[in-house]
Amino acid sequence: MRLAVLGAGAVGAAVAELATDYGHTVTALADSSSAAVDPEGIDVATALESKRTDGAVGSDDPEAALDGEYDVLVEATPTTLGDAQPGFGHVRTALERDRHVVLANKGPVAERYGEVRALERESDGQVLFEATVGGAMPVLSTIADFDSDHITAARGVLNGTANFILTRMAAEGLDYEHVLAEAQDLGVAEADPAFDVEGTDAALKCVIVANVLAGNGREYTLDDAEVQGIEEIPGSALDLATEDGRTVRLIGEVTPAGEVRVGPRLVPANGTLAVTGTENIVQLETEHAGQLNISGRGAGGPETASAVLADVGRLPER
Amino acid sequence: MRLAVLGAGAVGAAVAELATDYGHTVTALADSSSAAVDPEGIDVATALESKRTDGAVGSDDPEAALDGEYDVLVEATPTTLGDAQPGFGHVRTALERDRHVVLANKGPVAERYGEVRALERESDGQVLFEATVGGAMPVLSTIADFDSDHITAARGVLNGTANFILTRMAAEGLDYEHVLAEAQDLGVAEADPAFDVEGTDAALKCVIVANVLAGNGREYTLDDAEVQGIEEIPGSALDLATEDGRTVRLIGEVTPAGEVRVGPRLVPANGTLAVTGTENIVQLETEHAGQLNISGRGAGGPETASAVLADVGRLPER
Repeated sequence: MRLAVLGAGAVGAAVAELATDYGHTVTALADSSSAAVDPEGIDVATALESKRTDGAVGSDDPEAALDGEYDVLVEATPTTLGDAQPGFGHVRTALERDRHVVLANKGPVAERYGEVRALERESDGQVLFEATVGGAMPVLSTIADFDSDHITAARGVLNGTANFILTRMAAEGLDYEHVLAEAQDLGVAEADPAFDVEGTDAALKCVIVANVLAGNGREYTLDDAEVQGIEEIPGSALDLATEDGRTVRLIGEVTPAGEVRVGPRLVPANGTLAVTGTENIVQLETEHAGQLNISGRGAGGPETASAVLADVGRLPER
Repeated sequence: MRLAVLGAGAVGAAVAELATDYGHTVTALADSSSAAVDPEGIDVATALESKRTDGAVGSDDPEAALDGEYDVLVEATPTTLGDAQPGFGHVRTALERDRHVVLANKGPVAERYGEVRALERESDGQVLFEATVGGAMPVLSTIADFDSDHITAARGVLNGTANFILTRMAAEGLDYEHVLAEAQDLGVAEADPAFDVEGTDAALKCVIVANVLAGNGREYTLDDAEVQGIEEIPGSALDLATEDGRTVRLIGEVTPAGEVRVGPRLVPANGTLAVTGTENIVQLETEHAGQLNISGRGAGGPETASAVLADVGRLPER
């Protein structure tokens, strides 16, 4: 397939770098201010080197990527809340052109799911978004395979940064502020960690799962989620949990009643949900097959790119 | 889709019972000596009740199921080794009739994989077999989504009976013979437990994974697997492992070099591989996305039927 990749951050760059290995051609790569476009296939290494040295992936206008030749638009620009722009506009343009869309950007399917699905119904293109929930973990494809009607609930650890901080606090008996600074030094936490530690990122993933589970029913946005972060957990709370054979994890869940909640929860210290470090886990409760657990790397460029390319592989040829 | 279900044991019966719920019609259900066949759809409850009371699912000949009207043949007869008959013959007949085949029977894809794929290439039908590896767990679909080229190794706990026995031996300090008798009383182990405790069942699953990972390369059969069971593990070995923070699990693996091995291994007592009771787990090593872990119920009628029906849902309409 011919891929136009919007976004040249860690995920977009990794998609472009790995695409050939999966048998695809990158016909465009764009960041927020420039693009490299060639209907025969761009030179990805040159474009990424150009971004490193000159700050621009190429000499074309970003819009040229969206208007060029491609079978699949890979939307890997940063997630934005509210109107989910400019990601949502990119999705609309590609679908109106009867192109497929694969999202790594959570915004359009977390904040404007109904509109995305409505545009898809009018299009010959399809929309897939495995990479938006738990990086490399096959969560949405498993829900699709089991049929969302037969999944009754989902819960899990969906933010690696928050999980790294909680794991370190419990293991070292350190306070939140101390571990956060350490995580920032290691590059595990952003300079502004709010999106991760306040639970927003995990909540967006839960909202996306809730939308998929609801099918054509109720539509969810971030406003429907009850969200609490980890910033106010004292180290002493983790010490107390440890003495009791338990620990604290930031758990996101979609309940059988369709509620979306994210917050710190006590879980058994050696239980399935107590993944450590930046690992993520999702538990799906099925109607006929008990609980399924899927764990792995929930973030990272090549990891998320693998999910994007798995989605591309599922799409029908145009 | 119209399903012909061969085999009316726990899996075949559950497929027939759940099929309607997934939007399908059961046009035939057969056990080894009889069949209920109706191109408009059989009454599944009546057929299963007839099997309970009279020992026959219906008044038709079993061959009538194979020759009737269906889009997908669900092969859920018992796994046999060597020539994998009669399962292999059923697969051949359905593919020669350009029907799809979904296998719960491991024999054809463990012992005659190359022949099955050759028949599939000549057919308009496709063959899927998620249910043969780890019941409800989406192992083969995840390998397919990542592309088998990008999975470098697989390992896991693939037999619930053996795992139940090892878990109980470690937790209670009991000997193998004692726990085996207990497992037989509970219905977790068969009267003849050899297939499970000698590692054959886990090895067949590993052979199937090896065949999928090898793609069109080398073909594997059970003869290629190095297999050791759990019958000779003394309780004292589990006690020693526990003292060291470890435990013993029957681990099956496909190594990066393509070797297939099953045997008891020491694993960290609280590690990912140390699933308890009848739970199963598979770890996939990916080229670009680290390790993926999938755990859940690896056996059971409705669990395995869920995987069969997920496969049916992936097949194109005929």
